Amino acid sequence: MEKKPIIPEWDILFEIKSLHKPGALGKLLTVIGEEGAIVGEIKTDWVGKTYSLRTITVSVFDEDNLKQLIKAINEKTEAQIISYKDLVYERHKGGKIHCGRKTDVKTIWDLRYIYTPGVARISQEIKSNPIKAREYTSISNSVGIFTNGTRVLGLGDIGVLPAMPVMEGKAVIYDQFVGISAVPILVDTKDPDEFINTVEKVSQTFGGIHLEDIRIPDCFYIEDELIKRLNKPVMHDDQHGTATVVLAAVISALKQTGHLKDKNLKAAQIGLGAAGLGIARLLIDYGLEVIGSDINEESRKRLEKLGGKTAELNDAIHQSEIVITTTGVVGLIKSEMIRKGQIVLALSNPIPEIFPEEALNAGAAFAADGKSINNALAYPGLFKAALEKNARQITSEMKIAAAEVISSLADENELVPSPFHPEVHKKVIEAVKKAC
Amino acid sequence: MEKKPIIPEWDILFEIKSLHKPGALGKLLTVIGEEGAIVGEIKTDWVGKTYSLRTITVSVFDEDNLKQLIKAINEKTEAQIISYKDLVYERHKGGKIHCGRKTDVKTIWDLRYIYTPGVARISQEIKSNPIKAREYTSISNSVGIFTNGTRVLGLGDIGVLPAMPVMEGKAVIYDQFVGISAVPILVDTKDPDEFINTVEKVSQTFGGIHLEDIRIPDCFYIEDELIKRLNKPVMHDDQHGTATVVLAAVISALKQTGHLKDKNLKAAQIGLGAAGLGIARLLIDYGLEVIGSDINEESRKRLEKLGGKTAELNDAIHQSEIVITTTGVVGLIKSEMIRKGQIVLALSNPIPEIFPEEALNAGAAFAADGKSINNALAYPGLFKAALEKNARQITSEMKIAAAEVISSLADENELVPSPFHPEVHKKVIEAVKKAC
Repeated sequence: MEKKPIIPEWDILFEIKSLHKPGALGKLLTVIGEEGAIVGEIKTDWVGKTYSLRTITVSVFDEDNLKQLIKAINEKTEAQIISYKDLVYERHKGGKIHCGRKTDVKTIWDLRYIYTPGVARISQEIKSNPIKAREYTSISNSVGIFTNGTRVLGLGDIGVLPAMPVMEGKAVIYDQFVGISAVPILVDTKDPDEFINTVEKVSQTFGGIHLEDIRIPDCFYIEDELIKRLNKPVMHDDQHGTATVVLAAVISALKQTGHLKDKNLKAAQIGLGAAGLGIARLLIDYGLEVIGSDINEESRKRLEKLGGKTAELNDAIHQSEIVITTTGVVGLIKSEMIRKGQIVLALSNPIPEIFPEEALNAGAAFAADGKSINNALAYPGLFKAALEKNARQITSEMKIAAAEVISSLADENELVPSPFHPEVHKKVIEAVKKAC
Repeated sequence: MEKKPIIPEWDILFEIKSLHKPGALGKLLTVIGEEGAIVGEIKTDWVGKTYSLRTITVSVFDEDNLKQLIKAINEKTEAQIISYKDLVYERHKGGKIHCGRKTDVKTIWDLRYIYTPGVARISQEIKSNPIKAREYTSISNSVGIFTNGTRVLGLGDIGVLPAMPVMEGKAVIYDQFVGISAVPILVDTKDPDEFINTVEKVSQTFGGIHLEDIRIPDCFYIEDELIKRLNKPVMHDDQHGTATVVLAAVISALKQTGHLKDKNLKAAQIGLGAAGLGIARLLIDYGLEVIGSDINEESRKRLEKLGGKTAELNDAIHQSEIVITTTGVVGLIKSEMIRKGQIVLALSNPIPEIFPEEALNAGAAFAADGKSINNALAYPGLFKAALEKNARQITSEMKIAAAEVISSLADENELVPSPFHPEVHKKVIEAVKKAC
């Protein structure tokens, strides 16, 4: 609540009745603007002789801002608010996902084919030849999204039930972009071993295991251990999905500054949490020298184990051509720390460690914030390719292949394309399958 | 394999090219009939001057029968088999279920509503008021179908992976009949406590817990324990889904023989496995006196604990007005055991303990086998009602309400209606909600 966003992000749909006379709409929109709210789409539903009905989308900052806005409209205009609804709440009513049939069952014959007695033959077939489960069940196109709710978005340890909408969102993205059947599974334990055992016990249900929103350091141990135990792709998206998209952004920045072919480039990774460590790890595997910095000693040791160096914040930045920050600390990076010609990716949301304009003014050759960094570019295609190839793991080679193709689809003024780019997921799948 | 079904049940779709001349089709169908196979639908795809193309559905007994049939068609007719496919396998390709989005995500705005940043507000809302998860997630309309694969259909302990097609079939039925989002979960352990702990750990993901195809006696302990631990509906369908439909059949039989209002009726429950014990338990709660029989002492003790009596097979049958058998033993009941005027429901599939005609000839007032007994009549509506009412348990009252309404929708010559009866699931939901 303290980090008030720079732009209002709560979209409210107002149904408004206003007098149909010159200046009425202008007055209304002016009052909305005076409250700091931003007007989006305006739809005229009805125009009569004396009044009109419109639905207007307005972005507000928060609940207080909304209340103020309503008060201002009531007091300062002749317009009347018929109703208003929060578009985020609207989209969540009844949940966002459904697990259901692929084809209708309309007759007793359909039932005999998909259930008893027919299904017994499929069960027997799989019993004698387990690989057939890939062909005759949904498992080979499915991912379980497992969380214990200990590190959800920027909200922290909120528990499993409040994490469900986030997991459903991830599942929607899987389905929309690559047609994977993804199932959220809430694992109600903070004990990492109990978490691992639970996932292992139910792991045969799914083709891949997506780990999500698990706090550090448990997320590292849990992922390592499940990769060891399970003979199928396991990936903690907060680490590796993020890392893949950030590597794509780094490649784009190197291209745009003409440094893509440079040797011995150094990258400072400031912040070694789940995302930071994942990024550092992938940058090392990509061939960069990584100098990490974090106030937490354990986090620094973790990077050193992976072949990275560590240094104080100022040192790390000073030594590097590329600076990446994932600390969540607003304004951590001062202008005077920036070296001329550096690439600066200050990725914390909603407010970065240094604003791009500030970094550029300080001499950076390239600067961006984390707004366009969207994991949805990477994890759907990574898992789809792994499932299609029946891969045992999601390797760094696969992530690098994804990053390269994501970067190749970015426009000149973009770091990465939109996740709605018409080709991006198809191309990621192709590239990752080749790297399998 | 030893229990060869009485009628062929493998439906094969043949594409056949045959000479377009009088008697050619007749000859083909005769040869099919000579092999014991049954002709279903015949579709003419193309008729030319000299030949025609048809797709013909043929039911065969098994693989040997199919091979024989193909040989006979090739040797004894002029018809040519272009292709053939097994309709059960066709319906299983790629699996039968998919977990996906309810509405499309087409723009970056959609993404901001269903995922970050919008979703964070829903997570916070649920964090401060957990009941809101019912409104803003899919949990309140979802059921997890849990199995350890230890007692799958008539196939026994085949393990979790081969059980998946059966679980997917159950999920399809949930979706088709009552719109529940049902997710199979394979729990790979034979240890009942480990099973219970695993289900408990992931139970927050679902509104209800459906247990399926778990061997006795584990299924009893697992269900009891999960009911104790979880604050949501838990039901082992093999016991209670079956029991509900059998009670509906008993009520129908009592109506048809004019005994519905009789007092102090006795029912012999022969076979006290999962289904048998479930039936006995519900009949007791319905108000009948139950005399159970089983060769297993533990099974008999379990019934006695629930308030039932036990006796030897002959005694149990002799003392009772109603005889129900769920033993799987073909021909267990001999004509001479039947008492005049009895209601006999010999429910083992595919071949009952005594054929209905034989029981009627021996003096039974009413006799039927288990062909029409389909759990799909009961469990979807039971869970849907429980979820809608946010019920903590599925009680005997709820099952009895379901049974009564199921029976009320049966035609005069039916024990229970088809699961495709246009009203049955709606009526079950209404009745069970009233009983909640």
